[in-house]
Amino acid sequence: MPSEQKSSKAFKPSSLHSLRVLIGYVEVMKSNDECLREKMVLTRIGLAGLAVMGQNLALNIAEKGFPISVYNRTTSKVDETVERAKAEGDLPLYGFHDPKSFVLSIQKPRVIIMLVKAGAPVDQTIETLSVHMEEGDCIIDGGNEWYENTERREKAMVERGLLYLGMGVSGGEEGARHGPSLMPGGSYEAYKNIEDILLKVAAQVPDSGPCVTYIGKGGSGNFVKMVHNGIEYGDMQLIAEAYDVLKSVGKLSNDELQRVFSEWNRGELLSFLIEITADIFGIKDDKADGYLVDKVLDKTGMKGTGKWTVQQAADLSVAAPTIAASLDSRFLSGLKDERVEAAKVFKSGGFSDVLSEQSVDKEKLIEEVRQALYASKICSYAQGMNLIRAKSIEKGWDLKLGELARIWKGGCIIRAIFLDRIKKAYDRNAELSNLLVDPEFAKEIIDRQAAWRRVVCLAINAGISTPGMSASLAYFDTYRRGSVPANLVQAQRDYFGAHTYERTDMPGSFHTEWFKIAQQSKN
Amino acid sequence: MPSEQKSSKAFKPSSLHSLRVLIGYVEVMKSNDECLREKMVLTRIGLAGLAVMGQNLALNIAEKGFPISVYNRTTSKVDETVERAKAEGDLPLYGFHDPKSFVLSIQKPRVIIMLVKAGAPVDQTIETLSVHMEEGDCIIDGGNEWYENTERREKAMVERGLLYLGMGVSGGEEGARHGPSLMPGGSYEAYKNIEDILLKVAAQVPDSGPCVTYIGKGGSGNFVKMVHNGIEYGDMQLIAEAYDVLKSVGKLSNDELQRVFSEWNRGELLSFLIEITADIFGIKDDKADGYLVDKVLDKTGMKGTGKWTVQQAADLSVAAPTIAASLDSRFLSGLKDERVEAAKVFKSGGFSDVLSEQSVDKEKLIEEVRQALYASKICSYAQGMNLIRAKSIEKGWDLKLGELARIWKGGCIIRAIFLDRIKKAYDRNAELSNLLVDPEFAKEIIDRQAAWRRVVCLAINAGISTPGMSASLAYFDTYRRGSVPANLVQAQRDYFGAHTYERTDMPGSFHTEWFKIAQQSKN
Repeated sequence: MPSEQKSSKAFKPSSLHSLRVLIGYVEVMKSNDECLREKMVLTRIGLAGLAVMGQNLALNIAEKGFPISVYNRTTSKVDETVERAKAEGDLPLYGFHDPKSFVLSIQKPRVIIMLVKAGAPVDQTIETLSVHMEEGDCIIDGGNEWYENTERREKAMVERGLLYLGMGVSGGEEGARHGPSLMPGGSYEAYKNIEDILLKVAAQVPDSGPCVTYIGKGGSGNFVKMVHNGIEYGDMQLIAEAYDVLKSVGKLSNDELQRVFSEWNRGELLSFLIEITADIFGIKDDKADGYLVDKVLDKTGMKGTGKWTVQQAADLSVAAPTIAASLDSRFLSGLKDERVEAAKVFKSGGFSDVLSEQSVDKEKLIEEVRQALYASKICSYAQGMNLIRAKSIEKGWDLKLGELARIWKGGCIIRAIFLDRIKKAYDRNAELSNLLVDPEFAKEIIDRQAAWRRVVCLAINAGISTPGMSASLAYFDTYRRGSVPANLVQAQRDYFGAHTYERTDMPGSFHTEWFKIAQQSKN
Repeated sequence: MPSEQKSSKAFKPSSLHSLRVLIGYVEVMKSNDECLREKMVLTRIGLAGLAVMGQNLALNIAEKGFPISVYNRTTSKVDETVERAKAEGDLPLYGFHDPKSFVLSIQKPRVIIMLVKAGAPVDQTIETLSVHMEEGDCIIDGGNEWYENTERREKAMVERGLLYLGMGVSGGEEGARHGPSLMPGGSYEAYKNIEDILLKVAAQVPDSGPCVTYIGKGGSGNFVKMVHNGIEYGDMQLIAEAYDVLKSVGKLSNDELQRVFSEWNRGELLSFLIEITADIFGIKDDKADGYLVDKVLDKTGMKGTGKWTVQQAADLSVAAPTIAASLDSRFLSGLKDERVEAAKVFKSGGFSDVLSEQSVDKEKLIEEVRQALYASKICSYAQGMNLIRAKSIEKGWDLKLGELARIWKGGCIIRAIFLDRIKKAYDRNAELSNLLVDPEFAKEIIDRQAAWRRVVCLAINAGISTPGMSASLAYFDTYRRGSVPANLVQAQRDYFGAHTYERTDMPGSFHTEWFKIAQQSKN
């Protein structure tokens, strides 16, 4: 593959010395771009958009030994990044104040990662950069972009002879700096051009490899990242509910909560989100007495990916109630003033925040909440995975669910030992219709379902809501039943709308004149 | 208003005789359209698209004394409708086999209602008809159209001097024939042109008036109808859950269920859907032994409006978990084969369809399920109403929620005595932030919440799912609490993504270096 050959010419240690003086050199040469290309030593890759995520990913790439050019419209960010590169180990990172010099400083076929705000800023950045790019060059969007925008741009790029990738990047600032989970989708040729970089830059998981794989064509990388974020919403909501039950019903202190979550992080729940939750409970307020978590306002912000996940699930006829419950909880959290008013209305009706004090065995409660959280999590991931599969079928992306679970094992926000179980479930059966019926997961749920039901009922009786756990449980109890009361709904639809129905005992489509028959029997 | 004056010239009884021979006349004259207009007596309104809904609405209009022209591309439907008009009382309905004669047979300003499939068929019908229409004429789309399509078409019509309405029509076939609920939105001028017709054609509710009102500008009529359908999904799901609990836990027979629902239909749950549910339980299978409802396959179909409602709720940051749960239940009902397989997997793990037989007091269960259904319904309507308000604010539609509740009291699928309570709640306070905090509804919920919790827990312990009732309850218990555990979610977001947070005790936006602080305390 010729593009790979070109890539393999990349920087040898011997060329690094000259590169380290490049910034000054470019400053001098910027009035004479034409001769610049002939004289300067070229970097391996470029990155445009130097907010914290962009800075960190650039430093990560440089640290892995790939000389990188960086650019930002607000030039102070360029200088800031260059300073950081010096400070963090004299890394091979080169800053540019104008887009042309930036583009021309990269070896061909050029690859430029953009980390700018999704939407119009991406289009603007593409415009700014692509005029200086040549056939075979590639632009990678590393933001949380709507997958259809990526597909539109890829098409436009192809017409200009350029390659395009939409690459989900998860792991927050820390992940970007030290090893994110990367979900590149789009041009396979472009992926191969930088595969060596991505394999080193991504998080490395022992016995599992780097947290990156070529996801698939078109916008599949963005789509998979979107669902990843939806699952992340679900995980965070389920943890918040566990916290609420332990705090409101079990009366656990923050110290106790810290110990519980630290303990959980040594078992099957081992994960980044459980780990940081333990950390959070340990942190004292620096502005007043007490713990900081108690001072944080219960209003949750959000970006667009959770919303898109829920909308896509509806579009694809995939039930994703746990993820939807987490989104709704964020919406309701935002209505802080209305909730405070509502609490007053119901307080005057005899309702306190926690309805009834239920005496509970604290240790037993902790263990049961742990099991409820784990079982709920299985349902949430089952929803996310089935959403990805439905889209993969619709778009012909041929996504490998087990491989996605593998690259989420490290680097990203939902990284967890749990993902290894998911990977193995799909290794056992790539066609698994739902994680719930994988023999291992089924057994885990059976072992935990009694505790799960007790926790949800305990919360209901205490008047505190566990929308995510309840939604997961309802999802499980609907999916596991051969017969659900949808026969009545379908009979209603046929009654008032002549929508017809099928029968349990014979094939075909039927319609009944329910109203007429009912009238006859009344007369 | 000149258009009204014209309208008031509409057919006097004396002109009806000549109209009754129009069909034959047009058949004779159709090769000579030009002279047709001068000689023929004109009808008051036209209707294109003669599937059952279109036929029935046309017959309804004719029956109310408004001579109507009808047209359908497949001409056999035209003849069928004409036959029905004769059979159902020699109604003033006139069929046309070609679009031009059809259009020209209507008095100016012409008004034509389309009842064709949403999407491309609407565009095609507009194209076919509008070429023969003149400035000031109006087209009304009576289908379940996506509101943005209506707005696009209204703009295009305005450029051609034509008026446009998107009018939600609810009530199924029976409603269309004998009095639907009508939700016209778009051109106010066009609405006034046919207000006299709509007021007579719509369902009439004693002390409450005709079930029609001018909804608002643009696509507001379609949007309101869409949410109406979402609420309808919720109602049907909640009824199905009540049925499931009574049948699976209470072991009620179909005869008992018929009695229970008939009884419920005499109280606060009085509604079309409860009434037809009672009817359904009474109908015997005509193809085999037993009751028909037990033979209906538990797979629920759907059209697009429930999905759109859920997607719009996400778009507008409005929590609508009950409506979403009803949509998800339809999705899961569709996975019949998967559910049957899953049931086998869990049966081998010791799960039966109903997990544990709980001894229950049947009469007490019936009463508590009734209360749970009612309380859940309040939450579902609160969600739908808030979704409409959010859109109204976004679009500047200035929709009147109480007036919408009024026009839903008759004609439509969700018609119910309950809607009068909603109307009164908004009469008391048009700015009510949520139905839950209306004093009357708050009291109703307080009175029913204990039963509601018991029913949901009973279902959970039986292993049957009540996703709609659970979602409603979680919605209530989230909304009624001044503090929810979203503080933890926001702390997590600030931990891994530097998203910042607000504090409970001071204004401003804060960021904490959670990771660094946690590391320091560990070292």
